[in-house]
Amino acid sequence: MAKKVRIGVLGAGRIGKLHITNLCQSVPDADVIAVADPFLNDETAAWCKDLGVQVTSKDPEVVFSNPDIDAVFICSSTNTHAEFIMKAAAAGKHIFCEKPIHTDLAKIREALDAVEKAGVKLQVGFVRRFDHNHKKVHDVVASGQLGAPHIVKVASRDPEGPPMSYVEVSGGIFMDMMIHDFDMVRYLSCSEVTEVSAYGAVRTNPDYAKYDDVDTAIVMLKFENGAIGVIDNSRQANYGYDQRTEVHCDKGCVQVSNDLDNQAMISTRDGVEIAKPTWFFLERYNNAFIQEAKDFTDAILNDKETPVKGIDGLMPVMIAMAAKKSLDEGRSVKLSEIG
Amino acid sequence: MAKKVRIGVLGAGRIGKLHITNLCQSVPDADVIAVADPFLNDETAAWCKDLGVQVTSKDPEVVFSNPDIDAVFICSSTNTHAEFIMKAAAAGKHIFCEKPIHTDLAKIREALDAVEKAGVKLQVGFVRRFDHNHKKVHDVVASGQLGAPHIVKVASRDPEGPPMSYVEVSGGIFMDMMIHDFDMVRYLSCSEVTEVSAYGAVRTNPDYAKYDDVDTAIVMLKFENGAIGVIDNSRQANYGYDQRTEVHCDKGCVQVSNDLDNQAMISTRDGVEIAKPTWFFLERYNNAFIQEAKDFTDAILNDKETPVKGIDGLMPVMIAMAAKKSLDEGRSVKLSEIG
Amino acid sequence: MAKKVRIGVLGAGRIGKLHITNLCQSVPDADVIAVADPFLNDETAAWCKDLGVQVTSKDPEVVFSNPDIDAVFICSSTNTHAEFIMKAAAAGKHIFCEKPIHTDLAKIREALDAVEKAGVKLQVGFVRRFDHNHKKVHDVVASGQLGAPHIVKVASRDPEGPPMSYVEVSGGIFMDMMIHDFDMVRYLSCSEVTEVSAYGAVRTNPDYAKYDDVDTAIVMLKFENGAIGVIDNSRQANYGYDQRTEVHCDKGCVQVSNDLDNQAMISTRDGVEIAKPTWFFLERYNNAFIQEAKDFTDAILNDKETPVKGIDGLMPVMIAMAAKKSLDEGRSVKLSEIG
Amino acid sequence: MAKKVRIGVLGAGRIGKLHITNLCQSVPDADVIAVADPFLNDETAAWCKDLGVQVTSKDPEVVFSNPDIDAVFICSSTNTHAEFIMKAAAAGKHIFCEKPIHTDLAKIREALDAVEKAGVKLQVGFVRRFDHNHKKVHDVVASGQLGAPHIVKVASRDPEGPPMSYVEVSGGIFMDMMIHDFDMVRYLSCSEVTEVSAYGAVRTNPDYAKYDDVDTAIVMLKFENGAIGVIDNSRQANYGYDQRTEVHCDKGCVQVSNDLDNQAMISTRDGVEIAKPTWFFLERYNNAFIQEAKDFTDAILNDKETPVKGIDGLMPVMIAMAAKKSLDEGRSVKLSEIG
Repeated sequence: MAKKVRIGVLGAGRIGKLHITNLCQSVPDADVIAVADPFLNDETAAWCKDLGVQVTSKDPEVVFSNPDIDAVFICSSTNTHAEFIMKAAAAGKHIFCEKPIHTDLAKIREALDAVEKAGVKLQVGFVRRFDHNHKKVHDVVASGQLGAPHIVKVASRDPEGPPMSYVEVSGGIFMDMMIHDFDMVRYLSCSEVTEVSAYGAVRTNPDYAKYDDVDTAIVMLKFENGAIGVIDNSRQANYGYDQRTEVHCDKGCVQVSNDLDNQAMISTRDGVEIAKPTWFFLERYNNAFIQEAKDFTDAILNDKETPVKGIDGLMPVMIAMAAKKSLDEGRSVKLSEIG
Repeated sequence: MAKKVRIGVLGAGRIGKLHITNLCQSVPDADVIAVADPFLNDETAAWCKDLGVQVTSKDPEVVFSNPDIDAVFICSSTNTHAEFIMKAAAAGKHIFCEKPIHTDLAKIREALDAVEKAGVKLQVGFVRRFDHNHKKVHDVVASGQLGAPHIVKVASRDPEGPPMSYVEVSGGIFMDMMIHDFDMVRYLSCSEVTEVSAYGAVRTNPDYAKYDDVDTAIVMLKFENGAIGVIDNSRQANYGYDQRTEVHCDKGCVQVSNDLDNQAMISTRDGVEIAKPTWFFLERYNNAFIQEAKDFTDAILNDKETPVKGIDGLMPVMIAMAAKKSLDEGRSVKLSEIG
Repeated sequence: MAKKVRIGVLGAGRIGKLHITNLCQSVPDADVIAVADPFLNDETAAWCKDLGVQVTSKDPEVVFSNPDIDAVFICSSTNTHAEFIMKAAAAGKHIFCEKPIHTDLAKIREALDAVEKAGVKLQVGFVRRFDHNHKKVHDVVASGQLGAPHIVKVASRDPEGPPMSYVEVSGGIFMDMMIHDFDMVRYLSCSEVTEVSAYGAVRTNPDYAKYDDVDTAIVMLKFENGAIGVIDNSRQANYGYDQRTEVHCDKGCVQVSNDLDNQAMISTRDGVEIAKPTWFFLERYNNAFIQEAKDFTDAILNDKETPVKGIDGLMPVMIAMAAKKSLDEGRSVKLSEIG
Repeated sequence: MAKKVRIGVLGAGRIGKLHITNLCQSVPDADVIAVADPFLNDETAAWCKDLGVQVTSKDPEVVFSNPDIDAVFICSSTNTHAEFIMKAAAAGKHIFCEKPIHTDLAKIREALDAVEKAGVKLQVGFVRRFDHNHKKVHDVVASGQLGAPHIVKVASRDPEGPPMSYVEVSGGIFMDMMIHDFDMVRYLSCSEVTEVSAYGAVRTNPDYAKYDDVDTAIVMLKFENGAIGVIDNSRQANYGYDQRTEVHCDKGCVQVSNDLDNQAMISTRDGVEIAKPTWFFLERYNNAFIQEAKDFTDAILNDKETPVKGIDGLMPVMIAMAAKKSLDEGRSVKLSEIG
């Protein structure tokens, strides 16, 4: 293999462009050779060329059939993820896939089987694992310095809700938003979720109810290692992106507060003001997006395990399904009831 | 009525002595005339005299039958609370009663009926309402400046668990420890709890299981006003008393962190150290205990409503019962199922 | 000596009343027997009686000549301090004296000589030494855990300036306000000041210039142990009482920020607000005032050294004089040039 | 002019490589065409090629004589700055120059004259102005929302001292290290320094004295707008890079604390630990270095004023000279005495 990982990107929407930019400018070991998007327009094509991408196309085959390409970044719409994983695996290419792999467990398993059979590497885009804050919580827990985990907590709130057109196709708050937190609690607890119980409410916009969805949710969790936990989500935290995690352990507690725009404190007769949290995921997880891409190329170049594997793509989907079932049925639901 | 409220205290254990000290030294409008405790020893009697208390006795009748006494502080064991409330009411005395009133709903209702019939004032000892931090959260929510509450959160952890001899008679974590937090969420949400769902775990000492109890618990709650909430409890936070509250609302969020021993930050090559939270409730809620006593005497002298009334003694007990039922039955439990 | 220290208080103005209240309510080992103030009115006399003080008078002799009195609290106007110290010493009474002892070095020395000759204890009212925050800084430095001090910093700002009538007789910012900080740097550095250099400015009210005074000042200091330091003062910090200290040492740094009214953080679209510092010295140093009185009675009852001695009353006055000389002459001034 | 600014870099040492990396990877409007360094080795040349730089040479003439080059980055040793500025100006190229321009005022003025005569743009590398924290302080002061500045404070401490070989040629703490802070106080106060007074001490290593230097220094300052200020420096803050600024104004105070490695808090029986400040200037001012380069190319492409101009290169050198004079002579020194 060449010194750099030659990459084809599938999907050039918001998240695709983010990865293309990072791969071109901030990941020295990556070389983006081709970008394919069925809706590719001239502007995006020019933008890609400007970044040094040689091939742009509406046809994903330019990626799959190109023997120079070592790896693909799947940034297309969710319903294409599983299919593209299987095509990439068949072509012997390593795979970075945005979350979720699919909302159907059978499709996920089929895709993971294909990956395993092909012997290629797969990394799922749970970017928050690469955040300096959450990673610190994980590292402290994983080190064992605080003893066994007792309580795992995540507060995760978006600054503003998406448009209702998105809500309609989002798969619901558990599959679309809290799925990141389901991954996070697995990461922080260093254990698997075995059971969940969910409460939800429509508080910010009555239209959520039209789509059998909620905008505010709390989910309790039980873990294999005996810990219990809780996640809260809100679609609307108008002060910014609220992303706090905490693990209370036998010998103490580790918790992280939000990154702020700056460290300023302004004190006047009227009160004391500090900076707001960084606005949304593009700001907050900017460095994390770069780091996950670096870790992916590193795994390929040095034949290491990817830091977020296939099972990490499967489990959060199962937990999301259990949470929805709990909300619908008003009872605690075991993961073993799913799939 | 005289310029000062003349008080008889029932129970001179740890919490009784705390109230006696505060009433004598820090509540100018209070005058402690008598202290009765069935286990009163010479040392405690001398200590009372030293503080200016005229009458000390093992017999509570010295309080109830004394026409000079305007009000009683019931600080005796839980099983006597309801009976003493009724005796005090019958004697026409105002009543401050430590929590919980009773663990039997019928007894609580009987006591509250007696209070209402007698037309005396009753205040229940949910001291945390008088803490400068939690009160700020309540005041912000109650002011409406942040709009409707969406998520109510309480983290409440003791520095170390009680002896097993206490656990055995405690009534369990929900009735003994989380009951304070059940009051707190009612206070912070400005609403009533309608439904709860509980998870629990034995993490610090396997002996809790012997008494059908847990040492770690999370309870989700639904509120009449549409908000949802969550409380987490641990019997063991060996860094100190962890008492944080938060209400996420339509227009923003208000949250409070812990009071610390001091504001020092020590930075060295090895790291940066800040002070620990104040150790336990005696330190953390010291001023709150004084304030609740002041508000009680103020309510009497100026014929105001007491800030924590009979209903506030009843509801947390009902919520605790619902939480235990949820834990036992693995399902969400409505308050309407209780009592 | 009796189990309690029997005290006579001289001066019942603001600071006198503060000490009387603390001694009566919060210092179990103290018994205030007499209060004398030349301007004593009926209201204050009644207030004293209410607190249990037996004797009130306009004549300080009721204190000096009373053989039952063990110790005096000198809370009268500054120009009487030295004289009252000498009278108290002559009467064999222990002495607590508010700062400064005098603004004339000869008078201070005369008073200190009298104290030494009489063999009574003297404590000067530099209350900030008893603050939990500054004490922590001192303790860390004194422990040696951070090695030798390199830089000592104090920011000390009042919420609002005094009336000009007070400024006129105050003795100037160095003698009236920064004198506390001169004591503080001696306390924090565990060393003596040897040289100072001062800058000053009139920024809040041009009237300060009329009295050859400034409202904003910075003073650099050199210490016997080789450290250097800086103090800044402002008469006007309209966000509250700003009291921060810091010692940068060979192995690290210890610093303290302000106590806040509460630990709340309110986050909205408009920004994030935290609580203001406690408003002024009565709030911020409330517990410190109680602690200094307790330490004084403890020193007497158990024949210990007082925590703030005669030399601690002398040195800050000398430093203040050197600072004024530096400001006037535009040069660095050695302490050896003073007195 | 082309859409991108074509740049030649003079000097490929640590700071040169930093700028080359940023210009190539993070400044879309910049195109590094040539790099010249008299000590250029094969490794560095290859590194440059790898980043897309076409020309590498030991001869600076490849930059000055190349008509395709629009602007130069002067990152060579201090003694070459003024000469290179004049050569670049003569060649009609815009100039980014690392600080200080020179340690001789006449040379600086000569260079600035050449720049003005040539009509090219000059930006001096005071990178801290582009830090999100200090910029916030400046912006708040400049907005006038807090009224007139009264006290300007800067704490600026390096994690560890440079080797003595560097100290020997550094020009001393004021010219080498505090010069950044002299620029900072001008930036934060929105005013000019008129007078300074300096204290210094050798605390970390006695060898500083050999070079007539100190490792610990405090400088008081007076400003044209009536404010006063203070800077403290230490060559050794072994907890990391300590960079705090503060402006106390008529209506309030704005201050910034350090950026930390992360927002984690770890609480155990032994204490509470938070993260250390980012280690040194490469970490702390990483984004600021990128921003200053972006602002430079923006000034060229859109014919704006550069954000740090020639006068900003001259004044800090004058203040540093005045500070050294004050330290040597033990008196306050006016800027008008310099140059």
